Amino acid sequence: MALVVQKYGGTSMGTVERIKNVAKRVIKTYEEGNQMIVVVSAMSGETNKLVALANEMCEIPGEREYDVMVSTGEQVAISLLAMGLQSMGYKAKSYCGFQIPIITDSSFSKARIESIDDKKIREDLKNGVIVVVAGFQGIDREGNITTLGRGGSDTSAVAVAAALKADVCEIYTDVDGVYTTDPRIVADASKMEKVSYDEMLEMASLGSKVLQIRSVEFAKKYGVVIHVRSSFNDNPGTLVMKEDADMETVLVSGISFSKDEAKVSVQRVPDKPGIAAQLFMPLSAANISVDMIIQNVSHEGYTDLTFTVPKADFKKALKIVQESAAQIAAAGVVTDENIAKVSIVGVGMRSHSGIASKMFQTLSQEGINIQMISTSEIKVSCVIDAKYTELAVRVLHEAFGLARKGA
Amino acid sequence: MALVVQKYGGTSMGTVERIKNVAKRVIKTYEEGNQMIVVVSAMSGETNKLVALANEMCEIPGEREYDVMVSTGEQVAISLLAMGLQSMGYKAKSYCGFQIPIITDSSFSKARIESIDDKKIREDLKNGVIVVVAGFQGIDREGNITTLGRGGSDTSAVAVAAALKADVCEIYTDVDGVYTTDPRIVADASKMEKVSYDEMLEMASLGSKVLQIRSVEFAKKYGVVIHVRSSFNDNPGTLVMKEDADMETVLVSGISFSKDEAKVSVQRVPDKPGIAAQLFMPLSAANISVDMIIQNVSHEGYTDLTFTVPKADFKKALKIVQESAAQIAAAGVVTDENIAKVSIVGVGMRSHSGIASKMFQTLSQEGINIQMISTSEIKVSCVIDAKYTELAVRVLHEAFGLARKGA
Repeated sequence: MALVVQKYGGTSMGTVERIKNVAKRVIKTYEEGNQMIVVVSAMSGETNKLVALANEMCEIPGEREYDVMVSTGEQVAISLLAMGLQSMGYKAKSYCGFQIPIITDSSFSKARIESIDDKKIREDLKNGVIVVVAGFQGIDREGNITTLGRGGSDTSAVAVAAALKADVCEIYTDVDGVYTTDPRIVADASKMEKVSYDEMLEMASLGSKVLQIRSVEFAKKYGVVIHVRSSFNDNPGTLVMKEDADMETVLVSGISFSKDEAKVSVQRVPDKPGIAAQLFMPLSAANISVDMIIQNVSHEGYTDLTFTVPKADFKKALKIVQESAAQIAAAGVVTDENIAKVSIVGVGMRSHSGIASKMFQTLSQEGINIQMISTSEIKVSCVIDAKYTELAVRVLHEAFGLARKGA
Repeated sequence: MALVVQKYGGTSMGTVERIKNVAKRVIKTYEEGNQMIVVVSAMSGETNKLVALANEMCEIPGEREYDVMVSTGEQVAISLLAMGLQSMGYKAKSYCGFQIPIITDSSFSKARIESIDDKKIREDLKNGVIVVVAGFQGIDREGNITTLGRGGSDTSAVAVAAALKADVCEIYTDVDGVYTTDPRIVADASKMEKVSYDEMLEMASLGSKVLQIRSVEFAKKYGVVIHVRSSFNDNPGTLVMKEDADMETVLVSGISFSKDEAKVSVQRVPDKPGIAAQLFMPLSAANISVDMIIQNVSHEGYTDLTFTVPKADFKKALKIVQESAAQIAAAGVVTDENIAKVSIVGVGMRSHSGIASKMFQTLSQEGINIQMISTSEIKVSCVIDAKYTELAVRVLHEAFGLARKGA
């Protein structure tokens, strides 16, 4: 008998009809002889409705009260699923975050899970009860309701799986696994059978939207095996797990891309100590995260500094940078919003050389100019003109042999 | 400085705009130098929406899960009101039942409050915080969410007022007080300045819908003064309080009526011990509450037994009674759904005689036949043909001098 945690997102829980389907899936796994914990998100659209209501009341809702409000979406979802399971003849019990409890810190809207009490759930499982847990929410040590931020239900599921030492944490989504790249761009993108935590983390931070980054960090920390699969079919999905020998034989596991950044160049910056700090401190103070930073070698005491910021923060960032640039007597600021970041990811890179140059060569053969480069132990990212994004992804996918076998 | 508890129902909380008005009212009383606790219901319509969702999932939702679901309505309401108060520049904090906690028994959907911890609320009040409490909900000793039944927010408010020893518990509704009778029937019905707990209890159980019966029982038990008033104007309302000397000088305080009952007569019942039990035990087992019971004196060893049941249970009751009647060899069962119960209520009756006969005389002068009579220390009820209801209420209202002064 295995202990299985299953997590269903808002789309899978979108209507009463879909929730009934979720109940049937849960029952199927239960009937195969497993103990079951189900973690669910709010019905799709519900959280947005609640947020709209809060914004109708005031422009900037109090953050404690905001969490009280949005956590009701998951509360409705758990009660509906538990009712459904019961009406199909099974013992089921729902739990809000505070009832378990799932203890978090007090950072409203982006709280971090600190501990999960497994006592009540263990008791229920022993009695054959299917346990339904509200994702996304917890309670702090003062008894305030907290939420984990968008996509937080993934983290709830992994954390519950870690606390209960579950055999697997199945995350059900509307795609049936993690792909070598976006199948909407590369038709023969292949589903990975397994991927390491580190690769998944890189892919998540490079634009892949399958799993919330923090859920992967949590899974890595506690060694929880995540199985990403579709709630609309029975295909095996992708296992996110500890790196193994197989994984290292693959040079590149996947191609990620993101069009969510914009490029800012500060020109003719006097090349002396402290200049970079003068530029980036004000951005950091404004809570704008700077991603890639490139500083060219100095010519005649001057250099160019180029970096990328999230497009959502672009206007705010530009204003700050223009002020800083004036203060340090730089020649000017030029920007480009039409850029894309294309990345190759793979733990195999650690033990193989020549991967990066193969990437540069592949892009150059198509006449794609590389504007910026950044690398880590298991990824290489290039900033290119946005209009070449799809072309770049396709040629890299082919060059590194990622196409579906038999495609 | 007084401690004021204010309770706002679903209509007063019906839209974001109305909740802003509630916030303004609360602030007004706060600015007058009072400490404030606000107890609120769900936005009108929300609870019905949740119930519909539950019924879409299954015919008979599990009662524990049902309470998890419907309690979210009040949770949304408290967060919205607290956000509103904060955005207007005031310190405010919301509490779900479990956060205070409001401890109840485990009778889901009709739980009874057992105790309320005043510690957190006292601390907030001391710091000038306006405390917003979810009505209708609590938590049992095992940590399950419970609800108090429709209208339960009145009871929440009175219980919080009792626990905190508040100076007054203001219940805001869409009428501006308790009237001598329904103003839709008697145009010159007058608003009572004050009414005793016992009178209010009789009126509530006799059809007046202003306050939930249990909230009045609670107020009586703990001596909480309730002020029933309108959330749409500033008129003083009606005080529900301990009986005082003034009240006894009034013979009749109000006229109540109800068309929610039906009459059942079992004819030619053998008049021997145990017969009544044989008739009423099965009804009680089916959870049907029998209201008035009349047994005429026996003729030749037989009697007629007549009683009333709620119209909602009429069909179920009739089937049960027909079976019982056959078993005890009664002659038959006749019924009448077109009846009304008209009642006069007043603590003054205790010390005055002739009130009942004045009622009978008044009705008879209008040719209204009295079918059944029941009395208590402070009320007389008559069952009459339903078509005379409005006429009976009007003539009694006049006969006992209840018209608005100057009307």
